[in-house]
Amino acid sequence: MRPLLKTIRSTPLLWLLVFVPILFLTEHLRAASGTLLFVLSVLAIIPLAGLLSTATESVAERTGDTIGGLLNATLGNLTELVIAFAALSAGEYMLVKASIAGAIVTNILFMLGASFLLGGLKHHTQNFNAASARLQAGLLFLATTALLVPTAVAHGVAADAPVLQDLSLALALLMIAIYALGLYFSLVTHREFFGSATHEEEAQAEAHEQWSLPLALGTLAGVTVLVALVSEIFVASVQEAALSFGMNSAFVGFVVVALVGAAAEMASAFSGARKNRLDLSVGIALGSATQIALFVAPVLVIVSHFVGPAPMSLVLWPGAVLMILFATLTAALISNSGRSAWFIGVLTLGVYFTFAVALYLLPPR
Amino acid sequence: MRPLLKTIRSTPLLWLLVFVPILFLTEHLRAASGTLLFVLSVLAIIPLAGLLSTATESVAERTGDTIGGLLNATLGNLTELVIAFAALSAGEYMLVKASIAGAIVTNILFMLGASFLLGGLKHHTQNFNAASARLQAGLLFLATTALLVPTAVAHGVAADAPVLQDLSLALALLMIAIYALGLYFSLVTHREFFGSATHEEEAQAEAHEQWSLPLALGTLAGVTVLVALVSEIFVASVQEAALSFGMNSAFVGFVVVALVGAAAEMASAFSGARKNRLDLSVGIALGSATQIALFVAPVLVIVSHFVGPAPMSLVLWPGAVLMILFATLTAALISNSGRSAWFIGVLTLGVYFTFAVALYLLPPR
Amino acid sequence: MRPLLKTIRSTPLLWLLVFVPILFLTEHLRAASGTLLFVLSVLAIIPLAGLLSTATESVAERTGDTIGGLLNATLGNLTELVIAFAALSAGEYMLVKASIAGAIVTNILFMLGASFLLGGLKHHTQNFNAASARLQAGLLFLATTALLVPTAVAHGVAADAPVLQDLSLALALLMIAIYALGLYFSLVTHREFFGSATHEEEAQAEAHEQWSLPLALGTLAGVTVLVALVSEIFVASVQEAALSFGMNSAFVGFVVVALVGAAAEMASAFSGARKNRLDLSVGIALGSATQIALFVAPVLVIVSHFVGPAPMSLVLWPGAVLMILFATLTAALISNSGRSAWFIGVLTLGVYFTFAVALYLLPPR
Repeated sequence: MRPLLKTIRSTPLLWLLVFVPILFLTEHLRAASGTLLFVLSVLAIIPLAGLLSTATESVAERTGDTIGGLLNATLGNLTELVIAFAALSAGEYMLVKASIAGAIVTNILFMLGASFLLGGLKHHTQNFNAASARLQAGLLFLATTALLVPTAVAHGVAADAPVLQDLSLALALLMIAIYALGLYFSLVTHREFFGSATHEEEAQAEAHEQWSLPLALGTLAGVTVLVALVSEIFVASVQEAALSFGMNSAFVGFVVVALVGAAAEMASAFSGARKNRLDLSVGIALGSATQIALFVAPVLVIVSHFVGPAPMSLVLWPGAVLMILFATLTAALISNSGRSAWFIGVLTLGVYFTFAVALYLLPPR
Repeated sequence: MRPLLKTIRSTPLLWLLVFVPILFLTEHLRAASGTLLFVLSVLAIIPLAGLLSTATESVAERTGDTIGGLLNATLGNLTELVIAFAALSAGEYMLVKASIAGAIVTNILFMLGASFLLGGLKHHTQNFNAASARLQAGLLFLATTALLVPTAVAHGVAADAPVLQDLSLALALLMIAIYALGLYFSLVTHREFFGSATHEEEAQAEAHEQWSLPLALGTLAGVTVLVALVSEIFVASVQEAALSFGMNSAFVGFVVVALVGAAAEMASAFSGARKNRLDLSVGIALGSATQIALFVAPVLVIVSHFVGPAPMSLVLWPGAVLMILFATLTAALISNSGRSAWFIGVLTLGVYFTFAVALYLLPPR
Repeated sequence: MRPLLKTIRSTPLLWLLVFVPILFLTEHLRAASGTLLFVLSVLAIIPLAGLLSTATESVAERTGDTIGGLLNATLGNLTELVIAFAALSAGEYMLVKASIAGAIVTNILFMLGASFLLGGLKHHTQNFNAASARLQAGLLFLATTALLVPTAVAHGVAADAPVLQDLSLALALLMIAIYALGLYFSLVTHREFFGSATHEEEAQAEAHEQWSLPLALGTLAGVTVLVALVSEIFVASVQEAALSFGMNSAFVGFVVVALVGAAAEMASAFSGARKNRLDLSVGIALGSATQIALFVAPVLVIVSHFVGPAPMSLVLWPGAVLMILFATLTAALISNSGRSAWFIGVLTLGVYFTFAVALYLLPPR
């Protein structure tokens, strides 16, 4: 346990862990409004997400490069997955979909843009592995297609038509298969093109003390349970909070939930950019977006056939598909040159804020 | 005749020629259902298409590089043109349009993707002429624009409004003019950038014995007549077959007809990729798509003013334009680097299967 | 005054200045139909626009590189701004929006395409600064997003809903801020990547005699007033003229007004391309488009809150957004390689003519 406590002591973000017991106490005493519960659960999720990714990386480190990469690639967005599970079993499909779409857009535009900006303010120009970024952009392009098609088909078909559920299931299986092949490609057959392994290890060595495997696995299990409990409160309180803050639910799902879920990864991405390790930042931002689009979303579709009131489809609302499409095009345009400067970050953030402003001002519906 | 027989004997694909007389006999005896006629006509078209492209290449070889390139560029998709003619004179405009759109998408996504995959499974990485691929992507982008515009205008206008026919005719003339200028550019003024001539000749030398010009021309004429006759049966039987296989007509036109029409070219493209001559594969796949979009489709629009019940417009249904747009964007993203590996093929095929699955599951309408 | 007269005498385009007094006289005498006034005002605006850009460049030259660049970047499209002001205060919002969208599309597709074609007819291949072109393409992509979002939101909301005006104002401020940061980036922090300063100075040295600062400033002020007066007549007569020429108003705003407003810049861009200074042409064409999208349009939105009957939104009609999107994608595809040949010009013009033909044939509404 000592390395765990040491990590917590040395990482200010993790001090927010104090809000986890406060949240559970407040909820138990029924002492607070939904709005306060929402704020507390946001404050509690952020450090838990941080702990989760530290634990995942610790396990990954101990198991060799390939298995480690695989673990990172499947558990890296465990927070998002657990939050979405909570929303799924509550039947809040709109929130699930908004948070998936929001996570993709936030990771691409906000995390990547802010990394470029923060890195560029310190370093005149920065380089990153264009081959790796291009692969991620390609995967995102495929994911965009797979999200666009059911939405386009849904136009003129009843919202719960069986064809949409069959199509969503078939595409979900296709996406997971291609995601798996992509991992095989970048971790096994063509790993020499995606040389971020060394960087990552170094970054991890700095980020935390060496944890033993039992400690890492125990933390992973324990924190996952905590995140699940907190997420349940979060999902239950989010609608009331949105109303009282005057935000519509699209903004909450797309912007607030997405930023909360990605807080821990952002800390790593930004610190990487400041240390002129832009490969790390690009890898986290685009890798996370890819993982959510091609792994988390399909898993949720498949799981919804067993959990929740009815199967969930991949049908989004057209605006969400448009935002994902433009985020993907931005990633494709930016990743081409493999070079960055601060203004590239401004441009990317500009696209993000255009969407965020529109969502904020949108009439609630 | 001996070289012709020799070619047939040494090419297993051409053994399917036996289905040509079987088809005519079956049709004459009225012994079979539409579904059987459909299957037989598919089996008969494939080897005829192969023979047609061998004959075209033979003539092209004998007439020097420039004329040869021109011949290849105009007669290379003779099969598709003849099938479409048959559908056009039968007034089956939906089938014509679906097969045009399907041929573009199939050539870009399936033929190119499968070439990348098959080549990549044998060779670790492969290079191709990026300048040439980029020109094709640019032409496809223009064609996409020209197909998008009438479809966008048609929204809110009667389907047979004269404005759509005028617009389609004007755009058809514009596209043919630009296609001709593109040939002049790549075959005459800037041919040094598009160095695939040598490759092609070698490939042809392997593919078949030297044919004399009269034999090649005779084969070209005779086989074209046969394809026309077979196409007529094919078009007449396709609807009945679709019903009995439980496929909707969009899937038949988009997937089945397109794969049948391109079978012979695919054989060449795949064999090129396996022999690490990816330039050949990219040239055939993107070149074919370009030719159909900028030459075959406009010719059909112009011809429809003289043949068939009424002029055909370039108006497609929105989903078809979307698929062509995404196929073109895929081609643009992929062709940028001039380098390929097996997973690029998987990604490209992934986009194709996303569309194919959606079309297959779509409710018939 | 002598350098001014000398410039006029040596520049045939400026001889059209004779139409300025003719126009005012005709208008004063009420001697002519709207159609004649329209033609005369077009003929009068073209040389005034030329004089305006010469004067702007003269002032820019005298004030050092950074201030000069800034001046060029804010006053470079003064003609478009003044015409749009006249339309704005007349409440002709459709004309304002059509001319903004038209100017963006015309600058990207027609000016750039014709430059590539004219340059390529003289020089086998030409190179240009890809970094600079890519920055412009990135800015255009952001602008496209900012124009797309209100148009997408407007779907299903009343045309004059307050949310659209709030959103437009917020996006206008965001765009101006990013445009300003982009100038700071390319003129101050990373100017070494955008080495067009030398070219421009040379080009200017050729284009006109050295003007004194008072003469340049005086010309700037005087000509701006003249353009404003002519624009008022132009705006008042354009509808009548459109009817009598059988053109619909979309075509007039999108094609005619845009070509008139950009005539002077086109002369510079084309002459640069012929002299193998393609950087100059690309800079003028894409820089102008960027400036209109990220500076002129937002300024008009902000000004409309003080002038004119009601605040103007950024909502365009879907076709206009589509054209801007495709023009931007064309710019992105083309600017990637940093190399050009005549056929790239043909392709770019092909996209332009596709749009122009469709607008011309469109039924009036």
